[in-house]
Amino acid sequence: MLRGLATHPAARGLADDAAVLEVGGEALVLTHDTLVEGVHFRLGQDPADIAWKLVAVNLSDLAAKGAEPLGVLLGHALGDGDDRFIAGLREVLERYEVPLLGGDTVKADGPRSWSLTAIGRATHIPVPSRSGARPGDRIYMTGALGEAMHAFDAGPDASLSVTKAYRRPEPRLQEGQALAPHVTAMMDISDGLLLDAWRMAEASGVSFALDHSRFPFRTGAIMADWQRAVRWGDDYELLFTLPAGIELPYHSTWIGTVEPAGTSPLILDGQPLSKADNLGYEHK
Amino acid sequence: MLRGLATHPAARGLADDAAVLEVGGEALVLTHDTLVEGVHFRLGQDPADIAWKLVAVNLSDLAAKGAEPLGVLLGHALGDGDDRFIAGLREVLERYEVPLLGGDTVKADGPRSWSLTAIGRATHIPVPSRSGARPGDRIYMTGALGEAMHAFDAGPDASLSVTKAYRRPEPRLQEGQALAPHVTAMMDISDGLLLDAWRMAEASGVSFALDHSRFPFRTGAIMADWQRAVRWGDDYELLFTLPAGIELPYHSTWIGTVEPAGTSPLILDGQPLSKADNLGYEHK
Repeated sequence: MLRGLATHPAARGLADDAAVLEVGGEALVLTHDTLVEGVHFRLGQDPADIAWKLVAVNLSDLAAKGAEPLGVLLGHALGDGDDRFIAGLREVLERYEVPLLGGDTVKADGPRSWSLTAIGRATHIPVPSRSGARPGDRIYMTGALGEAMHAFDAGPDASLSVTKAYRRPEPRLQEGQALAPHVTAMMDISDGLLLDAWRMAEASGVSFALDHSRFPFRTGAIMADWQRAVRWGDDYELLFTLPAGIELPYHSTWIGTVEPAGTSPLILDGQPLSKADNLGYEHK
Repeated sequence: MLRGLATHPAARGLADDAAVLEVGGEALVLTHDTLVEGVHFRLGQDPADIAWKLVAVNLSDLAAKGAEPLGVLLGHALGDGDDRFIAGLREVLERYEVPLLGGDTVKADGPRSWSLTAIGRATHIPVPSRSGARPGDRIYMTGALGEAMHAFDAGPDASLSVTKAYRRPEPRLQEGQALAPHVTAMMDISDGLLLDAWRMAEASGVSFALDHSRFPFRTGAIMADWQRAVRWGDDYELLFTLPAGIELPYHSTWIGTVEPAGTSPLILDGQPLSKADNLGYEHK
C-alpha cells in the first residue's frame, strides 16, 4: 500500500526499510513493525514470546543500520495473557537495555495485533543502506540459516532451548555497529535470504551471485531442506557487502559476489531467479 | 496495561503522554496512537477521514509539547478503501508539511486498526509537561468545546463543513509552539476537558477549579448540553496553565484557577468531582 505514496514528495523512504532522520548532528533511525495473531505468530503462543519478538524484530532493523537503540513505543492490544506479555516485554527490554518511552493501549475484537516503533542513534555516518552494493564487492551474512525454521518445525511444545530461534530471536546489535563503518550495504534477512538479497541487489542496481555451497547451515536437517530454509525467513541475521580485502570485525560467512546488473537481481548457483520462484515472505 | 511497567526502571514515561528524548542537544518528542474500526471511528467512515484523524491526533500530542513535526511512521492494516486512505494521508501530510518516513503494512481479519508514530523536535526547552501547574496559575484553553460532538451528532451523511470537527480535526501546532515558552503545563483535551484537566491536576499535585460559565462553547445546541460536551472529547484543543500577568500569544479562554491540592484534583463550579462522575473517554 505504501508504495502508492512513492511518487509523493512527502514520502522519503517507505515500508520495510528503517527511516533515517538527521536531527541536531545525529542520525536517528526509526523502525515500525506490527505483529498480528495467526499471521506472524501461532495462535496460543506465549504472549511473553510475542513481546520479545515484537521488540527483537524492530531492534534487528536498527542493527542493520549500525544503530544503538534509544527506546521503543508500544501499541498494545489489550486481552488475555497481558501479564505474560508484560513479563516478556520486561525481559527483552532488560536484555537489550532499552527503555519503554511510551505508547498506547487499545481494546478491539478479532485477531490481536501489536505495533512497535523503535528509535535508535546511528553510530556511524553515513548510515548503511541497502543501495550501496557495488560490482566486485563480496556478499556476507552473520550467523546461520534456517535456525528459526528448524525451531518452528519442532512444534509448539518443544523446549525453549530447541525453539528459541523462532520464539526469542536475538538482534545482531553489536555486529551491526561493528560492521557499519566497513559495509557498502547492509540489511537483515528477516523475510528470507533470497528475497532480502533480491531486494538489496535491486536497490543497489546490481546482481547478487550467490553460491549455496557456501551458505552457513548449522544443522544436518536443514542441509537436506536448504531450498526451503533460504526462503523461510525469521532469521534475524545481517546480510552485507564489503569491498574485497577488508578484514571482518566479526566472524561472518562469504556467500557470494556482487556483479553488474544482469538478467536478474539474483543468481543462485549460476541460475538467474525470478519473483515467480517464491523467494521469501512477502508482507503485501 | 502499560501501567504494569511503571515500576520498571526501563519505563520512563508511559502511555497517553508523549515521550521526550534528548538527542544531540535537541529534545525529540515521540507519540504513538492507534485507531480501531468501530471504536475510534464509525464503521463505514471514509478511509480518507481515518487517515486524516490518525495523523491529526498524533500531531496534536506534538502540539501540546510545542514541537514541530519531523515525520510519521505508519502501521497500516490493508483492506477495502486503501485508495481513499492514501488520498486522505496525502492531504493531511501536505497540509501540515510532514513527511511519511516509513512504516509497515499488515493483512489481518477482524476490525482493522491503524497505528501511527509521530516524531517532532521541541521548539522550546524545557519541553512543556502536564506536571508543572502551580497554585495561583490561571487555566486556559484554545478554541471551543463540543465542536467534535456537535459534528458527530450531525450524522454520517451531513456535509463536510458541518462534520469537519469530528472528521478532520486540526491540531494546534502553531499555538503550541507559541505557547510553549510561557506555559507551566500543557496538554490536549482529546479525551474530554474534565478528564484531561483531572489528569493535569493530578500530575501537577494540585487542584483545578473550573468555572463552567467561562467555558468557550460556540454553538447554542452545545450550551444546552454542556455537561455532555465537557466529557465527550475529540476536541483537539490545548489546555494550559500560566502564571497570572502573562500576555497570551494567542487568543485563548480563561476557564479556571489552579489551587493547592484539595479533596479532589478537579472542582467544577465549586463542587469537587470524582472519577465516578464519568469524566471523559477512558482508553483502558
